[in-house]
Formats: sequence, C-alpha cells, structure tokens
Amino acid sequence: MRNLTLLTDLYQLKMMQGYFLTGKTEVVVFERFYRVNPFDSGYSIVAGLDHVIDYIENLSFEADDIEYLRSLGSFREEFLTYLTTFKFCGDIWSMPEGTVAFPKEPLLCVKANRMEAQLVETAILAFMNHESLIATKASRIRYTAPDDLLMEFGLRRAQNTDAALYGARAAFIGGFDATSNVLAGKIFGIPVVGTMAHSWVMSFPTEIESFRAFINIYPNDALLVVDTYDTLNSGVPNAIQAFLEAKAAGIVMEKYGIRLDSGDLAYLSIKARQMLDAAGLTDAVICASSELDETVISSLKMQGAKVTAWGPGTKLITADGSSSLGGVYKLVAEYGQAGAIPKIKISENAEKVTTPGFKQVIRIYDKATGKITADMITLVEESYSEDKPLILRDEIHSWKRMKLAPGSYRLRNLMVPVFSQGKCIYARPEIQSIKAYCQKELMTLWEAYRRFINPQLAKVDLSERLIELKKNMINELRVGKP
Amino acid sequence: MRNLTLLTDLYQLKMMQGYFLTGKTEVVVFERFYRVNPFDSGYSIVAGLDHVIDYIENLSFEADDIEYLRSLGSFREEFLTYLTTFKFCGDIWSMPEGTVAFPKEPLLCVKANRMEAQLVETAILAFMNHESLIATKASRIRYTAPDDLLMEFGLRRAQNTDAALYGARAAFIGGFDATSNVLAGKIFGIPVVGTMAHSWVMSFPTEIESFRAFINIYPNDALLVVDTYDTLNSGVPNAIQAFLEAKAAGIVMEKYGIRLDSGDLAYLSIKARQMLDAAGLTDAVICASSELDETVISSLKMQGAKVTAWGPGTKLITADGSSSLGGVYKLVAEYGQAGAIPKIKISENAEKVTTPGFKQVIRIYDKATGKITADMITLVEESYSEDKPLILRDEIHSWKRMKLAPGSYRLRNLMVPVFSQGKCIYARPEIQSIKAYCQKELMTLWEAYRRFINPQLAKVDLSERLIELKKNMINELRVGKP
Repeated sequence: MRNLTLLTDLYQLKMMQGYFLTGKTEVVVFERFYRVNPFDSGYSIVAGLDHVIDYIENLSFEADDIEYLRSLGSFREEFLTYLTTFKFCGDIWSMPEGTVAFPKEPLLCVKANRMEAQLVETAILAFMNHESLIATKASRIRYTAPDDLLMEFGLRRAQNTDAALYGARAAFIGGFDATSNVLAGKIFGIPVVGTMAHSWVMSFPTEIESFRAFINIYPNDALLVVDTYDTLNSGVPNAIQAFLEAKAAGIVMEKYGIRLDSGDLAYLSIKARQMLDAAGLTDAVICASSELDETVISSLKMQGAKVTAWGPGTKLITADGSSSLGGVYKLVAEYGQAGAIPKIKISENAEKVTTPGFKQVIRIYDKATGKITADMITLVEESYSEDKPLILRDEIHSWKRMKLAPGSYRLRNLMVPVFSQGKCIYARPEIQSIKAYCQKELMTLWEAYRRFINPQLAKVDLSERLIELKKNMINELRVGKP
Repeated sequence: MRNLTLLTDLYQLKMMQGYFLTGKTEVVVFERFYRVNPFDSGYSIVAGLDHVIDYIENLSFEADDIEYLRSLGSFREEFLTYLTTFKFCGDIWSMPEGTVAFPKEPLLCVKANRMEAQLVETAILAFMNHESLIATKASRIRYTAPDDLLMEFGLRRAQNTDAALYGARAAFIGGFDATSNVLAGKIFGIPVVGTMAHSWVMSFPTEIESFRAFINIYPNDALLVVDTYDTLNSGVPNAIQAFLEAKAAGIVMEKYGIRLDSGDLAYLSIKARQMLDAAGLTDAVICASSELDETVISSLKMQGAKVTAWGPGTKLITADGSSSLGGVYKLVAEYGQAGAIPKIKISENAEKVTTPGFKQVIRIYDKATGKITADMITLVEESYSEDKPLILRDEIHSWKRMKLAPGSYRLRNLMVPVFSQGKCIYARPEIQSIKAYCQKELMTLWEAYRRFINPQLAKVDLSERLIELKKNMINELRVGKP
C-alpha cells in the first residue's frame, strides 16, 4: 500500500493550516454527490468505497512528507508538528458499493473536524468518481449482452496503472465476468482470461502450426485469434483444421473457439459460425474484441452477430464519451454549541445551489414489484414509517405530488455507517458479493431507466422539511440583496 | 515502487509459456507506434519513458506472484521456475520524452528474447499511451495561452491515482507551469499551487472575514475564490475591500487576486478587471477554473476575457474527447541464424498492415527555418548523409516525390538507446529539461500543424528500401491467394 496522504490538492493543506491557526476546528459535515448521470444514463453505480477505506486507514504524514511540505515555504512549524500525529478520527457514511444511485443524492458523508474532513476530499472524489464511472459503463454493456461472457481487455489503453486495476474491479462489480489484467486478478480476486495475440501466430512459419502448438499446450482454453493473415480464407479454415486434428487425436478441449479482432464483426461472425457448424464444431465459441462498447455490441446483435464472448477494452476502461463523473464534495453542516448548523452554497447557476444539512437518502420501493418508486433525501434526524401514508413533493414544482398508501411501499436507508471515530466499522464484502448485490440493485430499476437513449429519470425528492430549510436559507442570503 | 511485474495481460504469460515450451526463444524486435493523432491534432508528444524505465528495472516475479500464477492452473512448474529468475535482458530504443511524433512512426523499440519482449508489451503501452495523451492535450492548451500561467487542477476527476500523478507530470512536460496535486509535486518535483475552496469562505460568518483571515495567513499567495455567494455583487467587492485593507495595514502581497469558478468567465473577468483596476489593484491576478480546455480558453480569449491564470482540470486530466491513444506494439523482426528476418501483419483494413523490419526514424529539418520538412522511416542499417541529395517517396502514391538539395536539410535520428542488455544506459533528464526540450520541439512544427481544426499533417515517408521490402512481403503473402 503506497502512502497516499499527500494525494490531495495543495489548497486543502493551506486551508487546513488556516483552520488550525484560526481555531476553526469544529466538527463539520461534507457530502459527496454528483449532478448529472454519466453516459446520458438513467443512473450510476456506486463504487470505490473499498479503496476509500484503505486510504482513510492509511492516512499518515511520514517524515519525508513533512520535509516536502516544509520545503514549500507556506507551512508553519506548529502546523507541521500537528500533521506528524494526524489521524482521521471522524465518521463516514456511504452507500455500499454496487448501489444504484441518482443525481443530487448524498452518496458519501464525512463528519469530522474541519481539517480532517477537508484533507480527504480530493482522494475520495478521485477514487469514487472513477470507479463509479467504470462500474456504470460495465453495467450498460452487461445490459446489452445479458447471457454472454464479458471480459475486460482494457489494460493497454487505460489511463495508467490504477485506472487499469481499479477499473477492472469496477467492471467486475458492474457485471463483467473476467479481466485480462493479471495484477487486478491477483489483488482483487477477479477471474483472469486470455489466450493469444497475433505475435504468437507470427512466431510460427505458418498459421496452422501456431494453432496446433497452442491447442497442444492449452487444450482447455484454446481461443485462436484468426485475423492475422485473412480471417475467412486462412484463419477460420486453419482453426477448424487444427480443432478437428486435435479431436481426432483424442485431445479433449474444454473450451475452444476463435477470436475476431478486426473487420466486420457481424459478417465475419455469421460466416465463421456457419463454417464451424458445418465442420461439426457447434460448441466452438466465437469471441470478439475491437473497439467494443454497449452501442457497438447492441448494434452487432441487432444484425445477428454470432458472438457470445465479448472483450471490450479501450471504450470501457476509459469510459469513452463520458470520461469523468463530476462528483463534488460540499460543506453541508457544521456543529456549534447548539448542534448542527446547516450550510449552503449559492450559485448563479441555480442547479449548482447545494442542499443544506446533514442528510440521509431513503429509497422507496414499490412493494408489489420491488422496483424503485422514488428516492427521498431527508435530514438524518427525520424518521418515516411504512405504516403511514407518504407524500412526495417536487422541490421546484410544488403542485407535483405523489401519495403512497401504507403497506404499498417499503423504505430503506441507503447510506450505512463505514467509519466511527476513525475506526472502520463496516464489514467489507467480498468482491463476488458486491457484484451480486449490484446485479440485484440493477433489477430494482424500471426498464425505462435503463434505456441508453433518453432514459426516464428516477424521481428524487427532498423531504418537506428539507425543502423548507433550503428555501429559507436561500431567502435569507439573497432576497433583498442588490 | 510497487511491483508491477504482473501488470500485463494473461495472454502474454500464456504465450511466454508457449514459447518456453516450444523453444521459441529467439531474439525478436517489437515496436510501439500509433495510427491516429489524438484530438484530431497534427502531432503527439512522446511521454512515459521515465515510467517505462522504472518498470523495466523493477521487473521481478516475487514468491506471491508465482504462487498466484500457480493457482490459475495454466502454468507448469518448469515455466514458473524460469519466472523466479526472470530479468529483462534486452535492448530498448525510444524517442526521448517531449519529442514531437507522428502516426505510424516507431516511437519505442524492444529487441529481446521473445518471452521478455512479450511480457513488457502491455505496461509499456499503458504508460506511454496515457502519458503521451495528456502531454499532447497540455501542449494544445499551452498553444492557446502562450504567456499565461497554466495550472493543472484535475486530481479529483482523474481516472484514479496514477492518472493524476503521471498526468500531472505529463501536463508539465506539455507546457503547464504547476499542479495542485501535492503528491505529484513531491514525487516529480513539479511546482505546486493552490489557495482556497468555497468551504473556506463558508467556514466564516461572512465572506469578507474569510478573505481577511486568508490574506493574513498567506499574504504572498492570496487568490480569493469569489463565487461562493454572488461574484460581482459580493465576492469581488469583498475581495477588493480586503486587499485595500491589507495594503493600508502595510501588508505586502507578493501575488494576489481572485479566482472565478463558475458563471460566464468572459463577462465576469472583464467586469472584475474593471472593478479591480478602478480600485487601483491593477496587479491583482484573475484566475479561472471551470471545465477549461484549449477550445474553451481560446473562445474566451477571442471574447476578450481578462484571465491570465488558468486552472484546467477534468478535461485535461481525462483527455476529454479523445480519452485514449491507440498505441500498439507489433512484432517487426526476428533474429535467425542469418540475422534479422522482417515480419509483417496483414489485415483486411489496409491501414492496419504493419511495416516490417527493425527501424529508425530520421527527422529531416529545413536548415533555413529549423522546421520539420518530413520524417523518414528507415531500416536501422540504412545510412544517410546530409551531403547528398535526398529523395522522399510517398509509399502509396509513388508519383509524389520530393528532392532535397545537399546543405538545405539537417538529419536527426529520433530513437536513442535506452536499455542495452537489460541495463539502462540512458541519462534520464530532469523534468525541467524534458519540459524545455518539449517546448523547443513544438517550435519545430509549422504553424499549420498546430491548428486545432483540420491541421496539416506532417509528411512521414518510408525509405526506398522499406517500401520495396513491404511491397514484396505483402505480395508473397497475399498475391495469388484465393
């Protein structure tokens, strides 16, 4: 585990020193949320919490960190001394990894003294923004190919090491089966897959010799890449011949087939399927890789492509087309002697005005279908019971209301405790459980929310109390001002 | 330094075992190149070599790596034993970091036994693809703002830790002045910058109190964020008042000013400049941050924005709009008893046919202007002299020729030796030198190549010998085939 304590913006450390010197060390609450779904999607998947836990538990300024900060000339000795014993001692709540989330919802909350809460902002955002993005992309690809094998092949195009490692993990959570990334497999326990590249084929005098040699060594996982010279005139016929020879020689091949890596994947897979079937190789797998994502795969499927194993790489691992999730981390409350004082940030851009207060997200499920009816953002101290009618109000258009009858709905608090007074109190699930949970979460979305183009957006309301609080605070700050 | 030996695709290890078992351990040559410039740009910047050197020098399978590979069930004990003593013993050539490069050119060459050359493919691609991409993006932003301060602010939106760290380094090489990323500053020696966020302002009862407190602690670097409540009606007037008070109190402010983080940056900066100037604060800096990149900055400048310090974040650090560089790594030669045998990969997509042979790139400069006339890809054994006329031929359109008179041009080999028999023999330059070299490299591009929209593309030709070799190999493989 590298020490990532300095993985923060310099302004965090300068503000920390400012709080230290001015005695502004009250407990405050920050929350992470985002404003717009990535990929014009109807949702996002929460990911990155496990990474955040590692990071928080390992926060510690080492001697060389202090030395470096001293060299910058902006920090005073008393502050540097404080940093030498710095530990995160606060509380964190978060939605579990794999949870389906929507814009404006608090996804993670940090309650800690102002200096601690400020330091951790940047890394928390970086980890969760990235990992959520990739998990969301992966869930979209899974949606296009519910029954196929999905393999993450993006390492060589990833935005460096951690993007590849945590990206492979996030893709698995989002619904992928495996990765080509060996280190990700080792670190996270994700299944790894891979067979051969063109360079294997080119290392032999002829294509068929390269195929024979490979089957001989890996009879149980012989996916032969067939486009080194000429897919339909050389690659596929040679693969068929090599498979038939192996069968004739009594070699039992558990999993075998071909990989298409260029050309028209619809046409080539249909032709290759016919050729394989005609040779009696009906159980040979056809795998494809080459600039794949949910759009390409669904288009290929529409045209009857005979591919059942897909290896998306670049477009998945870099979240092509939506390469960042704009998660932010905003101050929402500070604790004075009278308890929590809500805080708000106003902006000329109305959608950038924050919702004040220390909050929870309550998910409301339709009892009959198990699908999500709406989410309601509340103050943490509010409580709701499934035995009473529930009224949902729209924040802006107050005439938009929805009344739910007792017994027709189920409630669930989405954020759960993760750290308490600096100690992790969260039972970190195995990666397989996170993936299974995520796939269940996706089942709670109405189909309309999963559409790629113009999806229906989930209803996310503020509680009555929160609407009033926000309105009053805006009025106080802006009404009557020039 | 983390052990990244397993940062590779599983198929590399499976092919390695295949070569090991079939005795195919000849020395081979692989080369890295890319086919299309990122961002529809006229060039790319080479970056990531320093990272590659660290990686190659630290390659070593530890006991737990071997244990993990054993657990996969695909590897034999004799191969695992070989891995325990594995070291990279080959040669590597590369264009230095900061070099301007063009499509199809070999940027890095690995000559090593087949197993070693295969293992390192994936990590080399991942590092150099990513870092080149960000350096290129940064150089474009620098082009729009040649005299301004450029600060990289992307950490929170980066695709995880390494994208942020190596991205900050690549941005510096491409022409940035500083980063907000403290860890990048510590590791790479890049200047770090940062002042305050909205949360600082919100931590005080009033905006002006927050400004006073900040100036008091950081008089030499007081960039006040002015959009927490209302930029022109509250933020800027309060900043002016706080600066005037500080001056009146005899505080000497070395660098001070305001940061605009939302709203219309052209309008707000012009208004703010007027207000600051009217108050006599003509040396106050106006800094902007908010979804910036080369397109946004040049559009703002066209409208007269009064910003002289820019903090691009998300769009720079994720290479928005072109989130990957499609660099590939292809087998181009193998050594038999008779020396190097060139290798080729054919493809239905004509532009995907590789150029065979162990190669060098010779850059041809116009002696009068110092600008690039063309690049010529040659076999390593070819030699050219500036004293003779030079004829450049187009590979496809053989009627396109250019003849250069002796004395009118200068030649330079772009790839330099980096590893020899496993030892790094390259004097790794300081990051400041790499940046300076890169800025000089950019000066060798004609303005037409630097245009954002529809740039002129540099002339990259194959040598006469290479054109013949490639043509003959294609004919041999494909002509007369069905």
